Amino acid sequence: MSTGPTLDDIRVAARRIAPFNHRTPVMTCATLDAMAGARLYFKCENLQKTGSFKIRGATNAVLQLSPAEAARGVVTESSGNHGAAVAKAASARGIAAHIVMPKNAPAVKCRAVEGYGGVITFCDANVEARQARMKQLLEETGGVLVHPYNDRRVIAGQGTAALELLEDVPELDVLLVPVSGGGLLSGNSIAATSLRPSIRVVGCEPANADDAYRSLKSGHVEKNATTDTIADGLRAQLCELTFGILRERVDEIVRVTEQEIVDTMRLVWERMKILVEPSAAVALAPAIARTIRADGKRVGVLFSGGNVDLSTLPFH
Amino acid sequence: MSTGPTLDDIRVAARRIAPFNHRTPVMTCATLDAMAGARLYFKCENLQKTGSFKIRGATNAVLQLSPAEAARGVVTESSGNHGAAVAKAASARGIAAHIVMPKNAPAVKCRAVEGYGGVITFCDANVEARQARMKQLLEETGGVLVHPYNDRRVIAGQGTAALELLEDVPELDVLLVPVSGGGLLSGNSIAATSLRPSIRVVGCEPANADDAYRSLKSGHVEKNATTDTIADGLRAQLCELTFGILRERVDEIVRVTEQEIVDTMRLVWERMKILVEPSAAVALAPAIARTIRADGKRVGVLFSGGNVDLSTLPFH
Repeated sequence: MSTGPTLDDIRVAARRIAPFNHRTPVMTCATLDAMAGARLYFKCENLQKTGSFKIRGATNAVLQLSPAEAARGVVTESSGNHGAAVAKAASARGIAAHIVMPKNAPAVKCRAVEGYGGVITFCDANVEARQARMKQLLEETGGVLVHPYNDRRVIAGQGTAALELLEDVPELDVLLVPVSGGGLLSGNSIAATSLRPSIRVVGCEPANADDAYRSLKSGHVEKNATTDTIADGLRAQLCELTFGILRERVDEIVRVTEQEIVDTMRLVWERMKILVEPSAAVALAPAIARTIRADGKRVGVLFSGGNVDLSTLPFH
Repeated sequence: MSTGPTLDDIRVAARRIAPFNHRTPVMTCATLDAMAGARLYFKCENLQKTGSFKIRGATNAVLQLSPAEAARGVVTESSGNHGAAVAKAASARGIAAHIVMPKNAPAVKCRAVEGYGGVITFCDANVEARQARMKQLLEETGGVLVHPYNDRRVIAGQGTAALELLEDVPELDVLLVPVSGGGLLSGNSIAATSLRPSIRVVGCEPANADDAYRSLKSGHVEKNATTDTIADGLRAQLCELTFGILRERVDEIVRVTEQEIVDTMRLVWERMKILVEPSAAVALAPAIARTIRADGKRVGVLFSGGNVDLSTLPFH
């Protein structure tokens, strides 16, 4: 039995974070429906504040700190969307945020963190250096760790996306969610299966970073063999907490090739006129490839974010 | 006195075309508000069917054809959004659409027209060849011309965008609209000034194709000296009909540089996570440059379309 958050935790989170975040729209697209042979409902977290769903979990965690904890500020590590989200959530509460980022993080991501008032501490771009720097920073500042997914408060916050989606489209048959460390998939699978037990929840993962797929097969937490994927938000791996939730709540993990990611991302940009990042395209790719047995079904697709560097697009 | 459509014509058009087109959302963006020093309301015709506002006018014209006219089909010329819109509007009525396009039209635009069932007739890429081919095609097919802007039905259709925008945001102080042949600006200036006489309507035009700016200065229809602008939707020039309407309804035309167009387009993509084409960015650029005296005002911005070729983006 996992010790993840409950539907009630997610409902409370939704009320807690509502004043700070967008209720994102649910979009549809007749052309993509025809390609998928299904009715697709896109939950557009690319249009969320900070450009990704991460602000949901970060806000839910930061708002639950005690005054004494808050006074010490928060600490996290991220080369991407979670860092910006924690910086913004901390800023909204008026407290400090320290973000450990690798030296080679894209300039655009650093600017986003700094734009929200986060203080960046750079480290060498390897796991050991990052963990050492995090440990040091936690000791120096006395700050509270807001882990990107190994945290029940963060998972509950992320789950508010599916809560909203199922309020707008109650009769979903399938829900497609990208999976990396599993925070998004955990929270949303809890919300979706609690509200609608018949729903089939499918995790979508790059084949080049398929730890979740292999973990559910083998029955224990596997490591990524490579993280060589354009989906820069999906290079993390499950922890015991998220693995336990996924085992209970997720029906299947499907894997997506790099070519499918780029093609799907382009399709969304061209047809829906919205920017989704590669990690978000991963959730739609299996519907377009028709590998998820969703013919004629109502399929929710969680577009996780829209942060891309326009200077280095993969389109030719 | 112009002989343009009235507010009533636009209201009738709105009811006529509603079953066929999207009511597009009005989006906002706190970051862009801060940059502009104003409250911006974006009417997102980039999210409209066919990816631009053109489907409004095309649908309104095609639906008014008599059965005898409809049986002969429609004819137009366009290297861009109007061609796709006419093809789709004709397809919805089940009639033929012939579109004259220059031989050098982008493949993506040709695919769009064909995708909606339009029949393309190619011509050499100059005005004389195009006009000759149009004349020939009108004779051959007996089809009805649906001009992109020299047509009261088309202008009334385009005006439904401002009708919707002012229903959603009644207290607008300023309305920014791109101007090319003047169909969009004519229809929307009629709707906006009729509904809200105090509103200031500003046409936004590339400095490199500034016939409208010069026409309103000189008091007669001027020709474009060049059409060397990235805003591929804004290379046409006013006709007597649209010029007459603009003289009565538009307060000012402001000109925008090529660099401003690219910078503004990038800003929208990065901050709003939606695709706008260069022509749409032209409408926002003066607000960002703060050249329109809109401090603290409520400013409507008509995002005209989102059709761009992702293989040739101007971002570096």
